[in-house]
Amino acid sequence: MTDLWLVGIGTGNPDHLTLEGRRALREAALVLIPRKGPGKDDLAAIRHGILEAAGAKAAVAEFDMPVRDETLPYGDRVDHWHDEIANCWSDTIARSDVAGPVALLVWGDPGLYDSTLRIAGRLSPAPRVHVVPGITALQALTAAHQIPFNTVNGAVTITTGRRLRDHGWPGNAETLAVMLDGECSFLQLPPDHLTIWWGAFLGMAEQVLESGPLDLAAPRIVEARATARARHGWIMDTYLLRRDIPS
Amino acid sequence: MTDLWLVGIGTGNPDHLTLEGRRALREAALVLIPRKGPGKDDLAAIRHGILEAAGAKAAVAEFDMPVRDETLPYGDRVDHWHDEIANCWSDTIARSDVAGPVALLVWGDPGLYDSTLRIAGRLSPAPRVHVVPGITALQALTAAHQIPFNTVNGAVTITTGRRLRDHGWPGNAETLAVMLDGECSFLQLPPDHLTIWWGAFLGMAEQVLESGPLDLAAPRIVEARATARARHGWIMDTYLLRRDIPS
Repeated sequence: MTDLWLVGIGTGNPDHLTLEGRRALREAALVLIPRKGPGKDDLAAIRHGILEAAGAKAAVAEFDMPVRDETLPYGDRVDHWHDEIANCWSDTIARSDVAGPVALLVWGDPGLYDSTLRIAGRLSPAPRVHVVPGITALQALTAAHQIPFNTVNGAVTITTGRRLRDHGWPGNAETLAVMLDGECSFLQLPPDHLTIWWGAFLGMAEQVLESGPLDLAAPRIVEARATARARHGWIMDTYLLRRDIPS
Repeated sequence: MTDLWLVGIGTGNPDHLTLEGRRALREAALVLIPRKGPGKDDLAAIRHGILEAAGAKAAVAEFDMPVRDETLPYGDRVDHWHDEIANCWSDTIARSDVAGPVALLVWGDPGLYDSTLRIAGRLSPAPRVHVVPGITALQALTAAHQIPFNTVNGAVTITTGRRLRDHGWPGNAETLAVMLDGECSFLQLPPDHLTIWWGAFLGMAEQVLESGPLDLAAPRIVEARATARARHGWIMDTYLLRRDIPS
């Protein structure tokens, strides 16, 4: 492999693909697709559907995603896991016996809460890396709710569920966008003066949206999330919180 | 008009358009394009190029963007300006005498530091609004530099040049993404322990990138920005700053 394309594919809607991403997928000789274990076959199926919709003719090689070693401390666990994934990529590419550009389909955008770039940096010999930006869950969220991400001249902090649980509301932030939250961490916030816009399966036929003052919307979100997760076996969701700022 | 499509078009590269965006442009009956005054004909030309590349057959109506009344305080100035733009849209649509969906091409994403949604909310009678997410300058920036937007489990604050000048570095932020900065506001920060990744004309043939420790990169950016701006008559740029966090 001399060229590695990291293609942001958006949030599961094949129409989120950009023309640049479509061209990269069409020109790829090999596409790597992770298998994430039982109950997550949907995720691989969505990737195959995107390749088909894009008119990609590449060979497709699936590989089993390594599992994180939960006995390690968080930082080491992530590091070790990335090493293992890089090895999986190398082995799968070597076994495929295909010459030409290799592409990986990255959920959302390869820059935002995604490790594909960090894993690619572990490959030896180093390929030429190309990054194709993609629609993130945050953009699909604000588009679905038809809300601006920021207030006029306002700042937005993007954070994770883990950080929100560990550190609470960050300083005097006005708008908070939360990703990677499997635990409804908004339940730990004092709900006064907070509005939430939540969405799951954004941009897909299964899309679910909820919004409103946090105290009223939180129980609806918890229920909608549990129902949707039980139905699909997995869920991807995200939300935006905005604090009323006295004018 | 009953349907209004706000289509995120990315940062000037026609291949940033998503398949969803392309379909919206192809199905539009009328596309509104703002004229932003002398020296900015490029910007309208890029929009026309995107329409052509998308295979859009819509009628195109240009309108002169109102100028902000700089004698008003900031908040009122923006409010009043949005009212005027909404009136321009209504007049232009009425004059065009075209029936069917109307589309607006929005630089980047319609949610991020863009007022199109706020202006659309002023229209009367209210159209059905559809928002198509697009690639933002921040995604084009991190893709061009091949860097992750965030550190592992790290937060990112997105802010404006104006806020950075008025309020300095926000609290204990690790990563700061700065938009709408016409004044190289990074020059006002103590540069120690800060790394900057800057880009202008992102994703376009004219793309310019600079990066490095802030003290070393700042003068290069100031010069590259002035040169590029003089050459084109306008510039769109953005940057990411990351603070070293002692581990």
